[in-house]
Amino acid sequence: MIIKLHKNYTAENLHQIKAVLTLNQFEYVFVESESCVVVPQLKSPNFLIGIDGIDGIVEIDSSFQLASKKFKTQTIFEVNGIEIGGIQTNLIAGPCSVEDEKQIFETAAFLQKNGLKFIRGGAYKPRTSPYAFRGLGKDGLKLLSAAAKENGLNVVTELMDLSLLDQVMEYADIIQIGSRNMSNFYLLAELGKINKPVLLKRGMSARINEWLLAADYILSGGNQHVILCERGLRSFDTDVRNQMDITAIPMIQSMSHLPIFADPSHGTGSAKYVKQLSLASIAAGANGLMIEIHPKPSTALSDAEQALSFTEFENLLLEMRSLSKYFNRPIDSNHSICK
Amino acid sequence: MIIKLHKNYTAENLHQIKAVLTLNQFEYVFVESESCVVVPQLKSPNFLIGIDGIDGIVEIDSSFQLASKKFKTQTIFEVNGIEIGGIQTNLIAGPCSVEDEKQIFETAAFLQKNGLKFIRGGAYKPRTSPYAFRGLGKDGLKLLSAAAKENGLNVVTELMDLSLLDQVMEYADIIQIGSRNMSNFYLLAELGKINKPVLLKRGMSARINEWLLAADYILSGGNQHVILCERGLRSFDTDVRNQMDITAIPMIQSMSHLPIFADPSHGTGSAKYVKQLSLASIAAGANGLMIEIHPKPSTALSDAEQALSFTEFENLLLEMRSLSKYFNRPIDSNHSICK
Amino acid sequence: MIIKLHKNYTAENLHQIKAVLTLNQFEYVFVESESCVVVPQLKSPNFLIGIDGIDGIVEIDSSFQLASKKFKTQTIFEVNGIEIGGIQTNLIAGPCSVEDEKQIFETAAFLQKNGLKFIRGGAYKPRTSPYAFRGLGKDGLKLLSAAAKENGLNVVTELMDLSLLDQVMEYADIIQIGSRNMSNFYLLAELGKINKPVLLKRGMSARINEWLLAADYILSGGNQHVILCERGLRSFDTDVRNQMDITAIPMIQSMSHLPIFADPSHGTGSAKYVKQLSLASIAAGANGLMIEIHPKPSTALSDAEQALSFTEFENLLLEMRSLSKYFNRPIDSNHSICK
Amino acid sequence: MIIKLHKNYTAENLHQIKAVLTLNQFEYVFVESESCVVVPQLKSPNFLIGIDGIDGIVEIDSSFQLASKKFKTQTIFEVNGIEIGGIQTNLIAGPCSVEDEKQIFETAAFLQKNGLKFIRGGAYKPRTSPYAFRGLGKDGLKLLSAAAKENGLNVVTELMDLSLLDQVMEYADIIQIGSRNMSNFYLLAELGKINKPVLLKRGMSARINEWLLAADYILSGGNQHVILCERGLRSFDTDVRNQMDITAIPMIQSMSHLPIFADPSHGTGSAKYVKQLSLASIAAGANGLMIEIHPKPSTALSDAEQALSFTEFENLLLEMRSLSKYFNRPIDSNHSICK
Repeated sequence: MIIKLHKNYTAENLHQIKAVLTLNQFEYVFVESESCVVVPQLKSPNFLIGIDGIDGIVEIDSSFQLASKKFKTQTIFEVNGIEIGGIQTNLIAGPCSVEDEKQIFETAAFLQKNGLKFIRGGAYKPRTSPYAFRGLGKDGLKLLSAAAKENGLNVVTELMDLSLLDQVMEYADIIQIGSRNMSNFYLLAELGKINKPVLLKRGMSARINEWLLAADYILSGGNQHVILCERGLRSFDTDVRNQMDITAIPMIQSMSHLPIFADPSHGTGSAKYVKQLSLASIAAGANGLMIEIHPKPSTALSDAEQALSFTEFENLLLEMRSLSKYFNRPIDSNHSICK
Repeated sequence: MIIKLHKNYTAENLHQIKAVLTLNQFEYVFVESESCVVVPQLKSPNFLIGIDGIDGIVEIDSSFQLASKKFKTQTIFEVNGIEIGGIQTNLIAGPCSVEDEKQIFETAAFLQKNGLKFIRGGAYKPRTSPYAFRGLGKDGLKLLSAAAKENGLNVVTELMDLSLLDQVMEYADIIQIGSRNMSNFYLLAELGKINKPVLLKRGMSARINEWLLAADYILSGGNQHVILCERGLRSFDTDVRNQMDITAIPMIQSMSHLPIFADPSHGTGSAKYVKQLSLASIAAGANGLMIEIHPKPSTALSDAEQALSFTEFENLLLEMRSLSKYFNRPIDSNHSICK
Repeated sequence: MIIKLHKNYTAENLHQIKAVLTLNQFEYVFVESESCVVVPQLKSPNFLIGIDGIDGIVEIDSSFQLASKKFKTQTIFEVNGIEIGGIQTNLIAGPCSVEDEKQIFETAAFLQKNGLKFIRGGAYKPRTSPYAFRGLGKDGLKLLSAAAKENGLNVVTELMDLSLLDQVMEYADIIQIGSRNMSNFYLLAELGKINKPVLLKRGMSARINEWLLAADYILSGGNQHVILCERGLRSFDTDVRNQMDITAIPMIQSMSHLPIFADPSHGTGSAKYVKQLSLASIAAGANGLMIEIHPKPSTALSDAEQALSFTEFENLLLEMRSLSKYFNRPIDSNHSICK
Repeated sequence: MIIKLHKNYTAENLHQIKAVLTLNQFEYVFVESESCVVVPQLKSPNFLIGIDGIDGIVEIDSSFQLASKKFKTQTIFEVNGIEIGGIQTNLIAGPCSVEDEKQIFETAAFLQKNGLKFIRGGAYKPRTSPYAFRGLGKDGLKLLSAAAKENGLNVVTELMDLSLLDQVMEYADIIQIGSRNMSNFYLLAELGKINKPVLLKRGMSARINEWLLAADYILSGGNQHVILCERGLRSFDTDVRNQMDITAIPMIQSMSHLPIFADPSHGTGSAKYVKQLSLASIAAGANGLMIEIHPKPSTALSDAEQALSFTEFENLLLEMRSLSKYFNRPIDSNHSICK
C-alpha cells in the first residue's frame, strides 16, 4: 500500500506515521518527491486511521507498488521539450556503438534531416566476450554528444556501471539501463537519486512483475522518470536471437502508469524482421520505439545483423509516421499534453 | 532439394529418377500432386544431369523442403469461395467449445450478422485434466455444422485423433490441428492424404524450423492446403498463459510460402490483451486471425478468461476492419487473386 | 478428492453416490479397478456424509488426483517377475531404433550376457523430419520381440498412434509413450483400458503438474501400472539437446506414488554426459533408468550422438551396479517387495 | 588461440608479437600472470611462425579461450590450506543472509563442530523487491568475519557492486558473484585484477558458452582462481523456483579446467529437494557444494523455504561424507594434490 501525504503535511505528521509503522513492525520507504510512504503490505491497517497528514491510502495487490497503475494513471514528462508517455510516439534511433567521428556525425545529420529528436549510441558496450569491441568509452560519449548537439538531438546512452555515472550524466539526456543490468539492484537504487530519465530495458528472462519491481527500485529512490523498454526474451528457438514479447506492451499499460517502449532491433536480432515488428509495436500501442541504424550495417563493430541501413530506415520511417498518425499518436510532433 | 518434373513427364522418367536416387543411396519422397520428388539433400548431385523428365532442381538450404519459400512464392487457395493466403485478411471466430445449441446458434448468427465467413468451435477438446469438460463429441460437430450452414459460415474445428478423422472430415471445412498435436507425426502424415485444408497450430515449444517440418509431413503426403497458426509459446513468465511470438509472422513469410495466421486468444490467454495483439498481428502482416468469442464469457466451459464478449468483439472488429483496409488487406472481402 | 468405496460396496451404493454427485452438479469419474470415485474438487462436501458404501474420502489439494501421494504411498508391480517401483533399480537399455536383425539380436545377446531384464527399441519412430528414417514398423516389432524372447528379456517399445495399439500390445511388455505424445489425451485415455504397464515420458515442455495429470488420464481409465520417465526439457541452451531435470525425481517422489525413471540418453542428448547423469539419477533416487546403446553408435540411423557403445555401457554398468548397491537399491535383482 | 610465451620471453619478444598482431589487425589480450597472449581467432596464422619467445600456440575452437580445457587440464588452488578443484569435494554452508550476531555465531560454531572449512553468508543481498530486507551491509561483513575467525572458517560472501570491492576484499576469502551479476562485465573485468578466488554463479538464463566467456573476463584480467557454480535456471515450470542443471557439471568438466560447484539450495529453491540434489551433484562429479542452512529456517529473513535446519544438514552431511568417500573425493580432508 502507499500512504499519500497531504500536500501540507508536516515533519511532525511524517514522524508520527513512521513511528506507528515501526511500532507495528512494518518496513516502509518514504519517497519525498512523491510525498508518500510505501509499505509493502496489501491492506491498510487500522492503526493508520485518524493520523494527521494522510491524504489517502492506496491498497495495491501486487509486489510492485510505485509502478502500479493503482497509484497513478499515466506518467508523462518532457525531455528538452519532447513529451514522453503522452499522445505521441517517441522514436529513438542510432547505431549500436559509437565507432568513429564520421559514423556518428553522419548518423546524427541523417536523423536530424528526417525530423527525429533522439539519437542512441553505445560508448561502453556490454559484450558477452571479453575479446570483442567494448566501445570507445569517454571518447565515444564526447563524439555522441557533439554530434547530437550539432543536430539538435537528445542523447540516449547506456550506463554499465556506477563508476561511470558522472560521465554518463554529463553527456546523456536519457540514461539507458541494459537488459543485463535490469537486476543490478545497487545500480538501480542509485538511479533513484538522479534527475535524468532512465530507460530501463527488460531483463532477458525477467517476468513482468520483476521488471516493475526493478522500476520500483528507481521510483522509490525519488526519480519518477522511468521508461520501460521491451527488447526480446531468451528463448528455446534457435532461429531467432531473442523472442520479442509484444504482449508486454498491453500488459505494462494495464498494470503500470509508466511509458513502454519497444526495441525491435534487439527484440528480433535481425534487420529483416524489424519493419514488421516496428509496425506491430505501434499497433499494440507502444509509447515509443528504439531502432538500430548504421551508415553501413555490414561493417558495424557490434550487432551488424540487426542494424537497418539509412535507406531501409527512411522507408520504415514513412510507414511508421503514417501508421502512428492513423492511431493518432504521431511521431515526436510538437503536440503535447504536458503544456 | 526438390526435383521438379516436366508437366509431361512419363512413368518411365519417374522410374529412372527413382532408380538413380536409390542406386546412389538417397532417400526421396515422390509428391504426385506437385509433380516433384523431394530429396532431403542440399546440393543437386551430378548423376541427375541429363535425365529426362526433369524440369529443374531447387536446392534448399533448410531441413524443411516443400514448405520452403525457395520452392514456391505463395500458397493461395479457396475455401468455398473465400480466398486464403492472398490479399485479404481472413478472420475466424467462435467459442472454444461447442457447449449447447443455443450458444452455437447465437454465435453463428452473430458472426453472420457481422459479415464473417468462418466459425470455429471445439467438439473434441484437448484438456490437461481428465476431469475437465472434454467437449460434446459428435453431437458438438453436428450442432456446429448446422449452425454454420444456417448462417452461411465455414466450419473450422479440431481433429484430436485419427480415429475421428471420418467424423471431422464430414463436418469441417478446415481441419485444425492443435498445439499438442503438432508433433503427432502419424496424424500429420495421414492429413497429407485428405483433400481439406489443414490449419496447423504451432507446438507450444516448437522452433520455427520444426513447425515447417511438421508442415512438410502434410505437404509431402500430397495435401498442399496448409495454414500455419501462431498461438503463443510456453514461457517462464507466470504473468501470462502463453507468450505470443509475433515475430513468427514475418519469419514464416520470409522462410515459407504458406499462409500464417495468428491466434491472440490462446497467444495471450487473456481477453484484455486480445485487442492490442490482434491489431499487432495485422500490422505484422498476418494472413488471418482466429479469435475466441462467447455469448457470455464468464460461463464458458473452457478457456473462459480468454474469450471476448459479442460487444467486445464488435468493437475490435471495427478496429480490425479499419486497420486491415489501411494495409490494403481487407477482411474476407470478395476480392480475390485466385479468380 | 477421491471417494474410496468399501470393499463390499454394492451397485446400489455406487448408484446413490453417483446420484448425489450429479444432483449437486459435481463431475466425477468412477474407477472400478481401484474401487473409487474421483471428484475434481478439493473439500469433501457434507452431502456425502452418511452415504453407505463409502470407506473414506481423500482430500487432495492438487489438480491431479489418482497420481497423488495423498491417495497411495507407493506403486509397485511386476513385469514377468521383475518388480518395478520397489527396492530395486530397474534398467532398460537398447538402441533408439530397431535397424536390422543383426543389430537387435547382437544387442539382446549383449544385454542378456550382462544380466539385464529389459530391452528397448523403436519400431515406429517419431521423427521431426518426414524425410528421416521412421523405423521398420511391424517388422521391427517382430525382430525386437524375437531377439528379446531368445534372450529372456522384456520388451519396451513406443506406441505412436492408437491405430498401432493392437500391434504394440502383441509385442511389448511395457508400452512407452514418447515425449511428443504426453499430451495426446485421446491416446492416454485408451491406455487406461489396457492391461500392460505404460512408461509415460515427460513432455519436453511439460510442468510436473501437467505430467501427473497425464498420468491421471491413464489411471482414471483403470490402468494403475504407470511409470513416469524424465527425458530432458526444451531449453534455451544451445550447447545441449535437452536439459535434464534431475529435480523431477525427488519432486515426483514427494508428490506421487508412481515409479520415476530417468533417461539420461535423451536427457542430455550426448553420449559423453550419459555416465555422470546416470550416476546422478541413481543418487537422486530414480526407480529406474533407460539408456540407449548401439553395437556401433556412429552408424546408428537415429540419435547416433547419444548412444553408448557396448564397451562404454559395460563400464557404466559396473559403476551403476556398485552405486545402486551402495544405496541398497540393486539393479534388477531377484529381491522383491511384491512377493 | 592462445600464444604461450617461453618462460624466459623478453619484453622485446612480446613487443614483436604484439606488433605483428596489430599489423595484421588482430585483437589480442596479454595475460601477464599466465605468460600468454589471447587472440580470439581459431587458427594460428603463418605470420607467427619463427617469432622468438613463443613456446607454443593452442588453437581453441570455442569463443571462450582461457577457460578452455584445451588450454589447461585442471585448475587447482588453495584457500588458506584447503585445496579447491582437486581430489576433494569442497563444502560451503551457511545462511542466505547474515541476520544478527547470535544467528551467525551459532551457525559458525555448528559448522566448525561438524568439521567444515567454509561459511557463506550475505551482507549485501540482491533482492527482487526494493522493499525486502537487503542485508546488514558492512556490519554483516564484520559479524560474518568475526564468527568465521572464531571458528577457523573461511568466508564466502557476495560482491554486488564495484563500490563495495574494498569492503568485501577485506572480509572475504572467496568472493561470490551472484547469478544476476554474471553478465556484469564491468565488474568481472575488475575481478581479474584482484588476488582472491572468485566463485562465479551461472546466470539464470546463461548458456554454458556465455558462462565460460564470463570466466574469461576474469581470467584474461590475470586472476586465474575462478570457481564456477551452477545454481539453477529460469524455467517454465511453476512448480519449482529454479531448474537445476546437473548436466552442467560434466559439461563444464569436459569443456573447461575450472572447478565446478553446485548450489542445490538455489538450484531447487526448496529444502525438501536439497538432499537428493546434493547427492546427485556429488555423483555427477561436482568439485564442491554450497548449501544454505539456518538455525531456524522458518524465521529466515530471506530464502526461508530453501534453508536446511541444523539437524537436516547434519543428516545430509553424513550421507554426503559417505558418498564422497565412495567416489574417492572426501569432503575437505587434509589430502591435497597441491602439496
